[in-house]
Amino acid sequence: MNKVNLAEKFSLFNEHWQPKIVGQLNGQQIKLAKLKGEFVWHSHENEDEFFMVIKGHLTIKLKNETIELDEGEFYIVPKGVEHLPIADEEAHIMMFEPKDTLNTGDVSSNRTVTELEIL
Amino acid sequence: MNKVNLAEKFSLFNEHWQPKIVGQLNGQQIKLAKLKGEFVWHSHENEDEFFMVIKGHLTIKLKNETIELDEGEFYIVPKGVEHLPIADEEAHIMMFEPKDTLNTGDVSSNRTVTELEIL
Repeated sequence: MNKVNLAEKFSLFNEHWQPKIVGQLNGQQIKLAKLKGEFVWHSHENEDEFFMVIKGHLTIKLKNETIELDEGEFYIVPKGVEHLPIADEEAHIMMFEPKDTLNTGDVSSNRTVTELEIL
Repeated sequence: MNKVNLAEKFSLFNEHWQPKIVGQLNGQQIKLAKLKGEFVWHSHENEDEFFMVIKGHLTIKLKNETIELDEGEFYIVPKGVEHLPIADEEAHIMMFEPKDTLNTGDVSSNRTVTELEIL
């Protein structure tokens, strides 16, 4: 494989809430996404999910807590925990999670993306 | 868990080539390390290994190729591939790999760290 430059990969797409696969290893995937606005409440029955902010600011609402992430910060949402990502302004994030993790987890919505593009 | 701020975690240690665990998910670990100088040639029989540069510059020599990584760039060394990380100046890196991956892989050396600190 070639090395991956995050800024270059982010320059290749503009859609919000549509994760792109930029790396695969050990049954896991590295994904990038641009987020803006409010997503949908959901959880992942079997997958912990890593969110790291590369640019901007991300709010992750949990049922009893709100996590505020700035650039250079990450949070791992444990499996089974309901969460709602919110980005008031456009945020660029990197995710690590098992291959085939659905972006909306246990919720089927018009936000669900089943075929992820590989960049 | 709490959110993790990479800069804050990096401020907690100074040793080179001694990865610290800063996150765990899906049988994988997120590790941070400060590198300076040349490591040892090694490979990992069963683990692909993700290296991302957070600060500085990292060279990864492979047998037939040399990868040069700047800030915001990552490379995945596939399992079985011999590699030699080199940092002419101190570099700060983030790794993502299966739990219990040894830093020196198939090579036992005075660089091998078997008990990793959790920060």
